[in-house]
Amino acid sequence: MGVTRVETAAERWARFTPITTGEEYIESLRGRGVKVHLLGERVEEPVDHPIIRPSINSLRMSYDLAIQDPELATAWSPLINAQVNRFLHIVESPHDLVMKNRMQRRMGQLTGTCFQRCAGLDTISVLHSITFDIDKKHGTPYHQRYLDFLKLAQQHNIIIGAGMTDPKGDRSKRPAEQADPDLFLHVTRRTKEGVFITGAKAHMTGGLNSHWICVMPTQNLQEADRDYAIIGLVPGDAEGLTYIYGRQSCDTRALEAGDIDKGNAQFGGQETLVIFDDVFIPWEHVLMDGEYEFAQELVTRFTAYHRASYVCKTGLGDVLVGAAASIAEYNGADHASHVKDKLVEMTHLNETIYSSGIASSYEAKPLASGIYMNDPMLANICKHNVTRFPYEISRLTQDLAGGIMVTLPSQADFEHEETGALLDKYLRGRASVSTEERVRMLRLIENMTLGRNAVGYLTESMHGAGSPQAQRIQITRGMELEAKKALARTLAGVIATDQV
Amino acid sequence: MGVTRVETAAERWARFTPITTGEEYIESLRGRGVKVHLLGERVEEPVDHPIIRPSINSLRMSYDLAIQDPELATAWSPLINAQVNRFLHIVESPHDLVMKNRMQRRMGQLTGTCFQRCAGLDTISVLHSITFDIDKKHGTPYHQRYLDFLKLAQQHNIIIGAGMTDPKGDRSKRPAEQADPDLFLHVTRRTKEGVFITGAKAHMTGGLNSHWICVMPTQNLQEADRDYAIIGLVPGDAEGLTYIYGRQSCDTRALEAGDIDKGNAQFGGQETLVIFDDVFIPWEHVLMDGEYEFAQELVTRFTAYHRASYVCKTGLGDVLVGAAASIAEYNGADHASHVKDKLVEMTHLNETIYSSGIASSYEAKPLASGIYMNDPMLANICKHNVTRFPYEISRLTQDLAGGIMVTLPSQADFEHEETGALLDKYLRGRASVSTEERVRMLRLIENMTLGRNAVGYLTESMHGAGSPQAQRIQITRGMELEAKKALARTLAGVIATDQV
Amino acid sequence: MGVTRVETAAERWARFTPITTGEEYIESLRGRGVKVHLLGERVEEPVDHPIIRPSINSLRMSYDLAIQDPELATAWSPLINAQVNRFLHIVESPHDLVMKNRMQRRMGQLTGTCFQRCAGLDTISVLHSITFDIDKKHGTPYHQRYLDFLKLAQQHNIIIGAGMTDPKGDRSKRPAEQADPDLFLHVTRRTKEGVFITGAKAHMTGGLNSHWICVMPTQNLQEADRDYAIIGLVPGDAEGLTYIYGRQSCDTRALEAGDIDKGNAQFGGQETLVIFDDVFIPWEHVLMDGEYEFAQELVTRFTAYHRASYVCKTGLGDVLVGAAASIAEYNGADHASHVKDKLVEMTHLNETIYSSGIASSYEAKPLASGIYMNDPMLANICKHNVTRFPYEISRLTQDLAGGIMVTLPSQADFEHEETGALLDKYLRGRASVSTEERVRMLRLIENMTLGRNAVGYLTESMHGAGSPQAQRIQITRGMELEAKKALARTLAGVIATDQV
Amino acid sequence: MGVTRVETAAERWARFTPITTGEEYIESLRGRGVKVHLLGERVEEPVDHPIIRPSINSLRMSYDLAIQDPELATAWSPLINAQVNRFLHIVESPHDLVMKNRMQRRMGQLTGTCFQRCAGLDTISVLHSITFDIDKKHGTPYHQRYLDFLKLAQQHNIIIGAGMTDPKGDRSKRPAEQADPDLFLHVTRRTKEGVFITGAKAHMTGGLNSHWICVMPTQNLQEADRDYAIIGLVPGDAEGLTYIYGRQSCDTRALEAGDIDKGNAQFGGQETLVIFDDVFIPWEHVLMDGEYEFAQELVTRFTAYHRASYVCKTGLGDVLVGAAASIAEYNGADHASHVKDKLVEMTHLNETIYSSGIASSYEAKPLASGIYMNDPMLANICKHNVTRFPYEISRLTQDLAGGIMVTLPSQADFEHEETGALLDKYLRGRASVSTEERVRMLRLIENMTLGRNAVGYLTESMHGAGSPQAQRIQITRGMELEAKKALARTLAGVIATDQV
Repeated sequence: MGVTRVETAAERWARFTPITTGEEYIESLRGRGVKVHLLGERVEEPVDHPIIRPSINSLRMSYDLAIQDPELATAWSPLINAQVNRFLHIVESPHDLVMKNRMQRRMGQLTGTCFQRCAGLDTISVLHSITFDIDKKHGTPYHQRYLDFLKLAQQHNIIIGAGMTDPKGDRSKRPAEQADPDLFLHVTRRTKEGVFITGAKAHMTGGLNSHWICVMPTQNLQEADRDYAIIGLVPGDAEGLTYIYGRQSCDTRALEAGDIDKGNAQFGGQETLVIFDDVFIPWEHVLMDGEYEFAQELVTRFTAYHRASYVCKTGLGDVLVGAAASIAEYNGADHASHVKDKLVEMTHLNETIYSSGIASSYEAKPLASGIYMNDPMLANICKHNVTRFPYEISRLTQDLAGGIMVTLPSQADFEHEETGALLDKYLRGRASVSTEERVRMLRLIENMTLGRNAVGYLTESMHGAGSPQAQRIQITRGMELEAKKALARTLAGVIATDQV
Repeated sequence: MGVTRVETAAERWARFTPITTGEEYIESLRGRGVKVHLLGERVEEPVDHPIIRPSINSLRMSYDLAIQDPELATAWSPLINAQVNRFLHIVESPHDLVMKNRMQRRMGQLTGTCFQRCAGLDTISVLHSITFDIDKKHGTPYHQRYLDFLKLAQQHNIIIGAGMTDPKGDRSKRPAEQADPDLFLHVTRRTKEGVFITGAKAHMTGGLNSHWICVMPTQNLQEADRDYAIIGLVPGDAEGLTYIYGRQSCDTRALEAGDIDKGNAQFGGQETLVIFDDVFIPWEHVLMDGEYEFAQELVTRFTAYHRASYVCKTGLGDVLVGAAASIAEYNGADHASHVKDKLVEMTHLNETIYSSGIASSYEAKPLASGIYMNDPMLANICKHNVTRFPYEISRLTQDLAGGIMVTLPSQADFEHEETGALLDKYLRGRASVSTEERVRMLRLIENMTLGRNAVGYLTESMHGAGSPQAQRIQITRGMELEAKKALARTLAGVIATDQV
Repeated sequence: MGVTRVETAAERWARFTPITTGEEYIESLRGRGVKVHLLGERVEEPVDHPIIRPSINSLRMSYDLAIQDPELATAWSPLINAQVNRFLHIVESPHDLVMKNRMQRRMGQLTGTCFQRCAGLDTISVLHSITFDIDKKHGTPYHQRYLDFLKLAQQHNIIIGAGMTDPKGDRSKRPAEQADPDLFLHVTRRTKEGVFITGAKAHMTGGLNSHWICVMPTQNLQEADRDYAIIGLVPGDAEGLTYIYGRQSCDTRALEAGDIDKGNAQFGGQETLVIFDDVFIPWEHVLMDGEYEFAQELVTRFTAYHRASYVCKTGLGDVLVGAAASIAEYNGADHASHVKDKLVEMTHLNETIYSSGIASSYEAKPLASGIYMNDPMLANICKHNVTRFPYEISRLTQDLAGGIMVTLPSQADFEHEETGALLDKYLRGRASVSTEERVRMLRLIENMTLGRNAVGYLTESMHGAGSPQAQRIQITRGMELEAKKALARTLAGVIATDQV
Repeated sequence: MGVTRVETAAERWARFTPITTGEEYIESLRGRGVKVHLLGERVEEPVDHPIIRPSINSLRMSYDLAIQDPELATAWSPLINAQVNRFLHIVESPHDLVMKNRMQRRMGQLTGTCFQRCAGLDTISVLHSITFDIDKKHGTPYHQRYLDFLKLAQQHNIIIGAGMTDPKGDRSKRPAEQADPDLFLHVTRRTKEGVFITGAKAHMTGGLNSHWICVMPTQNLQEADRDYAIIGLVPGDAEGLTYIYGRQSCDTRALEAGDIDKGNAQFGGQETLVIFDDVFIPWEHVLMDGEYEFAQELVTRFTAYHRASYVCKTGLGDVLVGAAASIAEYNGADHASHVKDKLVEMTHLNETIYSSGIASSYEAKPLASGIYMNDPMLANICKHNVTRFPYEISRLTQDLAGGIMVTLPSQADFEHEETGALLDKYLRGRASVSTEERVRMLRLIENMTLGRNAVGYLTESMHGAGSPQAQRIQITRGMELEAKKALARTLAGVIATDQV
């Protein structure tokens, strides 16, 4: 302790160069000297690691799309009087939130996986109002610090990762009660330059692919948890950070030769455990320190934004509808009425998710700081549907794919001098479609329903932005039972109409 | 034939006086001399019939609400430069559609049943653009006639019923192919004053409670069906009309003494078979005559509007959530975790419906005539959820109600000198709640899940605005399978990215 | 108190004559002088009351079927060395339970409603072993009394109703804790001739149509509840009994002229509140008195038998599958692929229920008294599916029926001189089917999904033999979580294999 | 062609030694010289290949269980007057089928995967009656050949694999119509010694782990398909056979060091594409040759047996219930009411599957050859539930596991000198449980819901023994719609009761 190098905010920003293209983004991640472990080994250059690279490609798409479709993926920022990437834009209207949803769906369509930039975007949104509200109560300078940081972030067009989920240890104990105080990230000491933090953030989405990480509390806090009430911005290459890469189903296929068995060779998601060992944050980058009573509201607002962000999964759903329709066609089964009916059902479920997400955005209301927040009830409804429908869409896709989806030999067997011809002969479906096309489509379906991107399409849909029970708790809070009971009593004649 | 009295448009309008209050609305229905049959008898004055009156009360609420909550239930009409009932307002923006949805939910909350005015409202909306489009192609004068009519409608604040569903006979045959030509409503002759029509419109919602009925085609038509391509406005008391009232589950409880067993004594729905026997329509009130090629588009647009109108059922869902919570409380079971969980599930389903409805409205786009139409895909998604979730909400309500909901003795038994005290003693739940309160709440639940208003909450949710398969056909049309297949092919590496 | 006439067991039996035919059964119910209230009036002769009679017809079917299909509906009783109605037979083997299930399904097919005799049958079954077990512990004479009673019951071929469900009052309090001690039925005094009981049994299925009622505890009891631990047999016409008839959806259609609108004119269910005011039971008919510690086991065994008895609902499901197929045919829609698919889904759900019921029966194990009890886990599974699938079968039936199901005019309108011809003309579907046939089928569907027999098919499926949560509690008890955790630990390598 | 070595039946059997223990079974697979390809390479000795071995271990369990629990896993064979492995026993009674189901569930519990021996067992069953029926019609000697073979199979205690599924090519064409005649396996020539066959069998379960393969038709055949009507027994090491191993999700984790990330290190499933290139079968081992009209019935009976065999998945369901309960406990969340409720739901679904399977078995009826076949309707119901409920059980397990299930670092990271301690510190849940235990349980859940054994638990549950639509077709055939329509007509009063 006490050995961490103290850097000023300016020193930290000095390491960054403004980014425009996807290619520049990838270059910006090189040579940062971050400490990364994957499959038991220290990774020298994550950018070139075949398991990691597809996850970087997904984020890269957010830069490329801004160029290809600026109306969708950029917005005018009054902060810097310039067009900025929409992932760095603050929410000035319900329309901004709807455009966010459309961009998320498109990103999902283009990558077929988690593109990792939404949590950071929703963090930007929530910090605007929370810092404002804290300042109002405590006279703190957080909101201006936030705006200063955001301007630089927009000017440099960098990626911010959200460091929210603490490891939590024993779920029945509060942060300050844990046997090991580090099971929630916390401030260990304060100096005149800034604060030092220790702890970890679990399954951080795209953590390693971000330029800055924003740490913040993961749950409501009490007075005893004061040191856990910290929000701060940390560059991804700060001293004291260790990233340990999470395994995904079928991750090592990325290490194999050939692109077919990967299913989706280009794109993947990423979640890492990020350990903070006495990491320094200069005061300019501290946005909460001890104001524990705002932690609950921070989480509530963050989840309001973030649960509606899960409309991204409808983009993946679009890919699966397309894959299911394609494989039915390749199998020669596309005219069967039950096939058509299953495609309709998949679409119906997918659009139901989408509609609850954008409804939440359209119904946004302004907060005290002047930005808009989507309707929290409908955001929870959206996310709750996301914990259900992708599983059914996945099941229906597997139904249409046929069993061959899980019994296909490897690409190497298809390319082998002896077995290649045999496989080509025997695994052909409809004559007009090559065996390879059929195999590729089956591997994409495997990728999204069992393999690497099933992690994002299924399990992350379940737990990201809060597990199902977390939504049910929020729905309970917003369901206005007393008003509804009054409606029922009135119609039943239990009380006079004018009491409603 | 040929004996029907020919009236001018002006003569017909002369019978109406502008309406403001709900009370005036009820008076406006009196003494019209309409030919109504119910339970095998001619009803002399429908307004005072105890089975019919609750259905009128539901519509009356649309007048009362306009006074109580003008922001919600009225809108400024540029047509007549005045504030008009929102049920007569044309859709000038997505906001208008969202406000419509909010008003519909509120009406559902206040009546607990089908309030019968949405089909007419959605008819007004669709006719604006359809008449415009026909005129553009054919140089016809329909759009101006429409505007003229609508101005008078707004000035008189009358109710328009939608006469859409023909009896259809053999579903495998087209209108002109039916053995009996009257199984679809059609023009039998044309004179210089106007047209004469014969046929019937089945299960017309609130038909008898409307001042005017707009007849229009119910499905796509071909050239041979030209005489079936008729849109016209008919006053509800026109010569040649016969109304035969549809029975509802438990309808005759309305004839019993006491208000408890009715469940919802005040409000009910209404559907009638309306028979048109050589009914005259002056040319001023004819808005389509033979332009069969617009029938398909008419239906598609009408269902886009009307399927999103089914968010009204979320108002009924609110009542059921309230009733379920109330009865759990009266039974002393409100603290059980499974009870709370079921209320959350009911709310989740109800809000999912709501979100798909308002999302459709927010995503509205302008049509050539200048008004807005909601997103047809999301409207179909909304209605498709309505064919499922109310049944599950109803099931969960019955779960929380307990079996006593279907074994309660009659109100007369509760009031009987011998059995009254016994029932009060033995059917009490939690001591702090009177037996009567408990019984009333159970009867409301019976009303909405098995009885009179279950017709509206369940079966009409299934079939109104088109049965489930009709939505699946529309979803098929809008699901853009080729674009989605291209997404899948790109990610699977089947085709080059730039082809997408 | 103290004024009730004391009768001997023999005096009570002397009032009965052996019954063979259904006609004799109906006669056996006449002139009993029972005190019955319905719709606020004392009913002089229930047998001839048009609302009550259909419920009697359902039970009558159990006599007629025994004659028509003796293999199915009778069994050889070693107790009296004669063939007896299977509803009075004790369970000598798993085969007996399976035959019971088959008979129940057949009865459901033939009546389309609750035929009210299963609870009594399952009572006979559970008393065999419970009386045996009490005697073994306490040296009481209950088992022999039980056998003596059952012999007479078999010889007279009478119907036994199960009086189980107490009104319960405040669900958070035990019997002895209730403000009003009568909210659970209990012994008020004991004399040398017998016991006197006071209280009520709620929604007793077919109570009024039974010759004898067996009262028994409805839940587990503690020492303070000793007086509530009573099992006794009471003739249906005993002094002190009052029956208050439960209303059903659409019950008064039975009072209307014509048979069409009733939907199922012949058959109905019945549930009554039965009040016991100082009712006497001679010792010969007392089968438990104070052995409170057996109440829990009594309930557990009864529900094991009775929850599997809910396969009866698959008979009703068969009727609905048939009705849905018929109406699709009458509408001319039977060749649509979605129609066929929905019929398959209905069948799949219905047979799933059936399979869990008969699986429970086949897996029966003998109890100490020598009779068999079905597998309790699978019986709970069966019943739990019954709380879900009939609702979905009903929903799908309404889908296939079309909206006309809830907007049909009354039979009187069809028969009216003016409207009759109009309705016949306009409400015809496929030309080869008469309008009346179509209307009848629609009315049957209304009857089973909203009307009188929806009470039995839906709400009783939910709550009869215990509400859903009661099954979940039993499933929890039987789920053997520790053994399953051991399986998981072994495969995960958490513990050595030999520990499993 | 024509170069394949002709062997007699006796020569083929001479290569086998009777097997008793699991260890002997494994030895029996060594040194067979089979031609196997996996991941692009010829595998010299499959028994020792780390990807293949777990699949062999699963089959080995069928030998070990026969020794550990002979009542469950062996049966007395009258054919050889000895106790034989139940997987080689013919079905002499419904009890045999129920015992089969119990053994299957137990095997599933012990291996957590597909143990690959059911298809062979069900093949033995179906051949008994089919050969009998063919002989009866055609005077062929197939049944005796079958019995002779089965005796030797029982004496040697060998494993028989079912070679049923042809590659099928274009699904819209029949076998004889395919462009490539080999897309269905067929006889290419007949000599006095036997027949020669060419073609392939796709995704053969445990094909490589079997001693003999029984080829048989996969669908109904017409006269033009006569050469495709072949049933024959081929030793797994016959000349002309090539096995190409199917990839599974996460298969290469078996090649990694450490056992944790494998999830279930010991057991796996196996499916291979088996290519038959001019493979010889002596007449003694030919059980059908050209009797195409029996192909349909063969398939129907096979699926009746095999669809009920899918109760095996309830054994896997038991493991998942145990794993979900364990991880909830390790996370400290086991007392939450929603956790308990989800475990109940999982159990309910799992037991529903089990009940439909054993119900089918208990309802077995004898066939002409004297053996029993389970009820085909209920077998289809069972399998149809298997295409749904495991997906929901899997979803609920992922819910209880938490997101950490898909973001865990690798075992190597846990063992790394730097990261090991960090991971142990930060990924601990409840203090009393080691981090390793928690990780192992999460990896098991990953294995069964996304990884290697998800292939068996999910996708194979969907498609094995026929895809969902295949069951719906069979349900359609058995649903007896006319009888059900008659029930409905009777109750609706459409026809007189006596017509039913």
